[in-house]
Parts: sequence; C-alpha cells; structure tokens
Amino acid sequence: MTALAAVQAPGLDDYLAALEDRLNETVASHPGTAAEASAAALAAGGKRLRPLLVFLAAPADPPLAAGVAVELVHLASLVHDDLIDRAALRRGHATAWRTHGSVGARAAGDYLFARAFSELAATGDADGVELLADAALALARGEALQHAQAHRPETTVDDYLRRCSLKTAELFRAACLLGSRDPRLGEFGRVLGIAFQITDDILDCTGSTIETGKVAGNDLREGTPTLPLILAAREDEFVRDALAGGPLDGALVRVAATGALERARDVALQYAAEARSQLEGGRYRPELEALTHIVVERRA
Amino acid sequence: MTALAAVQAPGLDDYLAALEDRLNETVASHPGTAAEASAAALAAGGKRLRPLLVFLAAPADPPLAAGVAVELVHLASLVHDDLIDRAALRRGHATAWRTHGSVGARAAGDYLFARAFSELAATGDADGVELLADAALALARGEALQHAQAHRPETTVDDYLRRCSLKTAELFRAACLLGSRDPRLGEFGRVLGIAFQITDDILDCTGSTIETGKVAGNDLREGTPTLPLILAAREDEFVRDALAGGPLDGALVRVAATGALERARDVALQYAAEARSQLEGGRYRPELEALTHIVVERRA
Repeated sequence: MTALAAVQAPGLDDYLAALEDRLNETVASHPGTAAEASAAALAAGGKRLRPLLVFLAAPADPPLAAGVAVELVHLASLVHDDLIDRAALRRGHATAWRTHGSVGARAAGDYLFARAFSELAATGDADGVELLADAALALARGEALQHAQAHRPETTVDDYLRRCSLKTAELFRAACLLGSRDPRLGEFGRVLGIAFQITDDILDCTGSTIETGKVAGNDLREGTPTLPLILAAREDEFVRDALAGGPLDGALVRVAATGALERARDVALQYAAEARSQLEGGRYRPELEALTHIVVERRA
Repeated sequence: MTALAAVQAPGLDDYLAALEDRLNETVASHPGTAAEASAAALAAGGKRLRPLLVFLAAPADPPLAAGVAVELVHLASLVHDDLIDRAALRRGHATAWRTHGSVGARAAGDYLFARAFSELAATGDADGVELLADAALALARGEALQHAQAHRPETTVDDYLRRCSLKTAELFRAACLLGSRDPRLGEFGRVLGIAFQITDDILDCTGSTIETGKVAGNDLREGTPTLPLILAAREDEFVRDALAGGPLDGALVRVAATGALERARDVALQYAAEARSQLEGGRYRPELEALTHIVVERRA
C-alpha cells in the first residue's frame, strides 16, 4: 500500500479488504485468457488510490461498486498503455503484454473495462455510469494526446497540463464524484490528480526501479514531454535534443542540473494547495487534507 | 447498406438516418486524435445490422441510444481487432491502425467504447448498460479465445461455436434485448449471430475483396480455425498444415474441393432456422424472419 498506508480512517481497512475481494471476484467471473491476464495485472498490486478517494469523499456508506469500477478502469488503461508502449515491466512485475501477448493484453484491457461498467451498472446508478464513461473517454483522449506530443520538447506547460487532466485528473475527479456527488470534491479530485501526475513525472526522472516498480527515465526514452523535461529542455539543448529523439546518455543528470525537478515540484505543490482550498467540512476532511501532502511527498 | 437494404419497415429509414447523425455527433463530441480515428472508422460504413436488430425487436418506439451504443461497441471491437491483427484494410478502407498508428487505434477503440456507455447511461437505463457491458466482455473474451485457438486445426466445432457466441452472437443478443427485453428475442439474436458469423467465415474463403471489403483468405493466413476450415482440415492434410502455419498456396481451392463450404453453409442454415423458431408475433415478425434468410444469403 506504500505511503498511502499512512491514511487511516474508521472502516477504511474493511473497505479496502472488501475491495480486493470484489476485484478478484469480478476479474475471475468469466474464466479464460482475458481473465488470466487481468488477474495478473490486478495481482501486481497498486496503491488503490482511486478507490481510496471514493471512500474518503463519501459522506456515509462509501459505495464499494464505485471503488471497484474506478480501479478497474485504471487497470484497463494501464494494460492498454503497456500494450501500446510494449512495456515489459509495471510495478516490478511483467506486464500483461509481456506474458499474454498483444491479443491477451488487448482482451484483458477490454475485459477490465467492461467489468468496470458491469459493476457500476449493476447498482442501477446511471449517472455514475455516465461519470465513469466520461472519465474513460478522457483516458483515451489523453493517451492520444500523449502520442501527438511525443518527441516535441516545445510542448507548452498548458498543453502538458491538459494531458494530465485527461490522462489522470478526470478519473480522480470521477472517483470523488462517485463517492460524494459534490462538485467541490470533484474539483478537489481533479487538481489533486494533476499534483499526482506531476509528482509521477518527477519520480520518472529520479526514482529507482526498486522504489517505483518502473524503469526510470521511461518518459525521456519515449519522448514524452513531462513538466520536468519541458522545463529542463528550455535551458539545456542536450535535454531538448534527447526529448526530440536524440542521444539519451547523461540526459537525466542534466535535467537535474537545470533545477527543473524543483521547479516542477513547486508546481505540484501549488496544485496540492489548490486541492486543499477546495476542502470544506466533511467526515474525512483531515484524511483528504493529509492525502494532498502524501501525494506530492511520496517516493513511489 | 448492402443486402440489408432489402429489409423495409415503416420508420426504419428515419431511424437509420437519425442513427447516422447521432453516431457522427457522438464521435465528434470530443475533438482530437481519438475522435478523428474513430470518425474514419465510422465513415467506412457498415451494415448497421445491430441497430437494425434493436429497431426490429422493439415493440414500439425503438430506442435510438441503444442502436447507437451497440454500433459503437461493434466499431470499437473492429478498431481493436485491426490494431492487434495489424490489418491494413477494412470494408475497403484503410484501418484506424493504418492511418493513426497503434496509439491512435487503441485510443479510438477505447473512445468508441466509452462513448457507447455514455450514450446508453445518459438514458438512465442501468439494466441496459449491464447488458451492453456483458456483451462487451464477451467480445474481449472471444478475441482472446480466437488467439488461443490460432493455428490449431484440431479445434472442435463446439469450441468454434463457443467463440462465435462470444465474438458475435452475444452482441446480437444484447441488441435484441435492448430493443425488446424479451428473452425469446434475445435468443433469436444469439442464434442469428451464429448463423451470421458462420456465413462471414464462409465468405472469407470465397469472397472477393471488392464484394466484402476485406482480403479473402484472411482466416487461413492468420490460422483462425473457422467452421469451413475445421471441416476441410479433417479431410485434407494440406489444409490442416496450412491452418497450422504451413504453406498457403492453393489451400483455399482445396478447402472448396472438400465440400466444407456447403457443409458449413448447412450449419448456418440450421442456426437461421433455429432463429426463426424463436419468433412469435410482434410488430416486425416478417422483417425479422426475412433477416434470417438475408444473413445467410448475403455475399458481403
């Protein structure tokens, strides 16, 4: 559970335990290759951050199906990302693409996606399904935008933030709305998601494989213009060339040397503060506030 | 509209025209790469057979959103299939994979999928969303099963039929249920779907590119054990080897020489008859009955 284990709240352990059970059940519900590849993606773990948002946002009786659904959409997106990127490793485990091939990974992603909608639809919550569908749509658009921005060091910070919104923040927002239906908490989730993504992108420049479960420098290798890389590229021609597809050796050290990591971190902290400013009362206000710190302080 | 244009019913033309408008609108709703690649997939046309089933199954006021949703799930599945198969051509047009790359095709598929759930969820029909999610799940499982059966000439007819159910028939069933919520019409759709898929697989052995919009012999090339190929492989060692990954030259002619095409067609006709036996009264009984003939008689 990594750093998020620091968040404690009455009933949370029970909710997360029930969530794991339900995730395992729903993935196993229709045996076959798609279920197997999905189960492997599920077993690789993860922070279960989106279900945690559902739980903490809920004024009472946090809905389990919503937590399951947001995590399944997130997993589906990861499986499809790894398929497209031909990534071998995710959270320190072999990816579905690596173990089950293109077809297995495609089917696993589609399977997880369909299970997400089944779980939520079974509750009769049509508004919730629409929220989830919009978030899933944003994920697909974000992935396409990432491709369009690849190897473009001149990508603006605004365009980068737009990508973060689509790829990450909209699902955070949906998780908070599925828990609460409170627009302010939705906005809390959205800006928290941006802070989270910026932090992820910084970790990609600095983290070791052991801590993050990913190979560091992935974004630079793939030419993905993240905030630290955009800021560094403005000051260092070698980084700019590396991001555009040139030689990579030593580029990450130069990114650090420009001070871009600290400046990106400042932006993440601003978004975390903006998230806090959305918080009013509510059952789990202290925990949500803690989360805004944990998300930017984490090391994995 | 190919052979399905033979189906005429009061209000059908208006329904199909409204369907095209709504499909175009929903795909264009969030501009970007995913929308562009999706629009191309949509513009390539298609029989709109699944929305036709929604229309004909409905006792009154055929729901447009359900027609849109089943067609979008179908298109999503085609886009992802083409991505995995690296297919260059679909319905005589370049595929999304070919024009927009892996990332564009993946995003387009996910986008179409998410739009399908948005459209249906917006109607507040949670049961309908669950039906659609189950059908989408079946599609993913069917694709995985097809991969597991690839290059296995010893695949049994039962296993082939199971694959047809997952890949094709479940969405036909969902279309009829979304129109009617009548289990008998659902079963009608399911067995019609199997007749349709068997016919498709026969056409793949015989059809020209101009008629079907696909390159003939695709299944043999990919080692997909379809009914005609399974039946032919039992009698002809060369076909068996070709299906297992051996040389292909002349194999399609040998498939025809075994009489497997006619025997496969007999099975398709049996399923079409079984579909007819499910029909009771209902507004469009003659049209649904006509469809059971058209589906197996079509040449594309």
